[in-house]
Amino acid sequence: MYPEDFKEEKELRKSKIVEALNGADAILLSDNANLFYTSGRVFSGYTYIDASGNEIYFVRRPVGLKGDEVEYIRKPEQIPAILDKRGLSMPKSLALELDHISYNDVVRLKNVFADSEIVNGSAVMRRVRSQKTELEISMLRESAIHHREVYSRIEKVYRQGMTDIELQIEIERQLRLAGNLGQFRISGQSMEIFMGNLLCGDNADAPTPYDFAMGGAGLDPSLPVGSNGTQIKPGMSVMVDMCGNFTGYMTDMTRCFYVGSLSDLARKAHNTSIAICHELQHMAKPGTPTASMYEKAVAMAEEAGLTDYFMGHAQKAGFVGHGVGIEVNELPVLAPKSRDVLAVGNVIAIEPKFVIPSVGAVGIENTYVVTEDGLDVITDAPEDLKELY
Amino acid sequence: MYPEDFKEEKELRKSKIVEALNGADAILLSDNANLFYTSGRVFSGYTYIDASGNEIYFVRRPVGLKGDEVEYIRKPEQIPAILDKRGLSMPKSLALELDHISYNDVVRLKNVFADSEIVNGSAVMRRVRSQKTELEISMLRESAIHHREVYSRIEKVYRQGMTDIELQIEIERQLRLAGNLGQFRISGQSMEIFMGNLLCGDNADAPTPYDFAMGGAGLDPSLPVGSNGTQIKPGMSVMVDMCGNFTGYMTDMTRCFYVGSLSDLARKAHNTSIAICHELQHMAKPGTPTASMYEKAVAMAEEAGLTDYFMGHAQKAGFVGHGVGIEVNELPVLAPKSRDVLAVGNVIAIEPKFVIPSVGAVGIENTYVVTEDGLDVITDAPEDLKELY
Repeated sequence: MYPEDFKEEKELRKSKIVEALNGADAILLSDNANLFYTSGRVFSGYTYIDASGNEIYFVRRPVGLKGDEVEYIRKPEQIPAILDKRGLSMPKSLALELDHISYNDVVRLKNVFADSEIVNGSAVMRRVRSQKTELEISMLRESAIHHREVYSRIEKVYRQGMTDIELQIEIERQLRLAGNLGQFRISGQSMEIFMGNLLCGDNADAPTPYDFAMGGAGLDPSLPVGSNGTQIKPGMSVMVDMCGNFTGYMTDMTRCFYVGSLSDLARKAHNTSIAICHELQHMAKPGTPTASMYEKAVAMAEEAGLTDYFMGHAQKAGFVGHGVGIEVNELPVLAPKSRDVLAVGNVIAIEPKFVIPSVGAVGIENTYVVTEDGLDVITDAPEDLKELY
Repeated sequence: MYPEDFKEEKELRKSKIVEALNGADAILLSDNANLFYTSGRVFSGYTYIDASGNEIYFVRRPVGLKGDEVEYIRKPEQIPAILDKRGLSMPKSLALELDHISYNDVVRLKNVFADSEIVNGSAVMRRVRSQKTELEISMLRESAIHHREVYSRIEKVYRQGMTDIELQIEIERQLRLAGNLGQFRISGQSMEIFMGNLLCGDNADAPTPYDFAMGGAGLDPSLPVGSNGTQIKPGMSVMVDMCGNFTGYMTDMTRCFYVGSLSDLARKAHNTSIAICHELQHMAKPGTPTASMYEKAVAMAEEAGLTDYFMGHAQKAGFVGHGVGIEVNELPVLAPKSRDVLAVGNVIAIEPKFVIPSVGAVGIENTYVVTEDGLDVITDAPEDLKELY
């Protein structure tokens, strides 16, 4: 089933989940991110973990998985008999991913576990996954190495006269050649994006339906976000915020470029973004409320006279940072109403960005690991604006 | 809101939905594919259509959408007051996407529509969307033109010594440069793939968790499908089954290549795939049960002595074709237990494929429009095996 060297890790993750069950007797998971988290791979089926620490993978596909925990099923209705065969009683209360799996899937599982009280396991898993294990952090660090390396090649792939999408395609290719898996995993159904975002000129101010930090009209109304074919011209900034999924774990990193010259306002905003990142890194430690980090960022933007441009112009995002991991929108969230408090093992992206009309977007984004000593940046690479020519 | 030239189309789609409501007083949609279908663009919010033909877009984001049908909301709890303001009564029965949206989203909407009987709107929309309008067919035809054109360049981007993923990356780049949106839309949560599938050698026989026709181990256990870094060597086939999403509507098309020489068995299987496609195209017309098309394909594979290899070897897919459109797994399905019957306006992909151990996958896939005269192939391009050198 899982790789041999994943055995200890699997036990560790299981114990974290058992500890977080919060009174539930068991949890049944079927979301791909949670299957990957619990088993080290994606399969079709369910991971079942009970409060005593029993773990079973109920697998529909692929054929051929091995291991004591593997039980092949065609349908979830077979689960109770298998639990019984293993001498396990049906859970009095069962946690399911009520925020993630479909209504009809839950109804079906409720019938399978007809005598169980159903509670919400989505919150359990969000909380557990927000504090990464050492292995997860090493996978994020590995993603960051490749992410940084590809970003260092952006100036080389730029050619004069390119459109935003043409430059994006060359960066996509470099990412893929460096081992990027492409997949941009986002929790929930409504947000979609293809491999990330590259914005320049007025397109940076086009509002999108999605809860991303930045916008862009996109190439088509079926996917209205990001590059829209704008030709990159002197005076424009080019913001690159592309996917860092090299290991199943995604780092988030933004760097900015420009062509010709850039307005003082845009330069000031970019430097303010860097200053905000440095200040938040400096102030944050385990125990810091993430809302206070958001407020600090807002205050620094205001102090610089840049409130109108902060986190968007025509439409603003309501956060300056977020957890990353298997998915790009994990906990904690750096937002005004968040009650999250930083904890050791959190991995967060901080992205104080500005949209300057007719110039584009400026600012940076880094991914940080929360350690006992504070925030350790894993996407450390030059943060200044770079000229494309 | 929607493009000006989408007005008539919007009315047409609305009337198809109203007709399919099957006794429900209204339907409330929030899945991106259904929002795109009903409004011509993706937004964050809901499309509401009642049995009298009233249509409202309840929009959270983006800011700035215009039109009589647009009502801005922050949360679904505001919907009843807006219906009341418009003189519309609350529906006695309301269709929701119970197969698609999360349990907790449905629970929340049930509270908003506390006096309404909730019925399943997922089935309504699947059925409506299975019969494409003329505009949708033209968008599929446009995707097909680009899809074919890029496939004609595959031989040019191949270089000796490439791995499967290296070739895939060059095809991805060609697709993107030709306007491919990248996004591979699949209904439901469990299937994931990045821009399609390229398989060669034994990797073609690696079983996956996903309900795709073909497999592949993938590059990482977080996305176990497709290319795995196999070096393309003489004697191997290379199956290319990449995403055709150029317009928000996806064509599906597979072509096969080889390096050096190919075994007689593989050549025979490839030619059998072509023969099956031609035979199914010949036999199919409006009214044809899709199960009979599946059975015909199985019989032809058996007659050729190729049953062991048909639709996979270690793990087999249970279908030979499927509807395509905004998503890649639409109705009708060409599977043994399907009760679907071909109808004018269906757009289907037929993909009778074979996995030949140590060679790879062979066979073709085309996309067809069901017309009154039968099946019109829109991915018409040479179907024979092509040598890469």
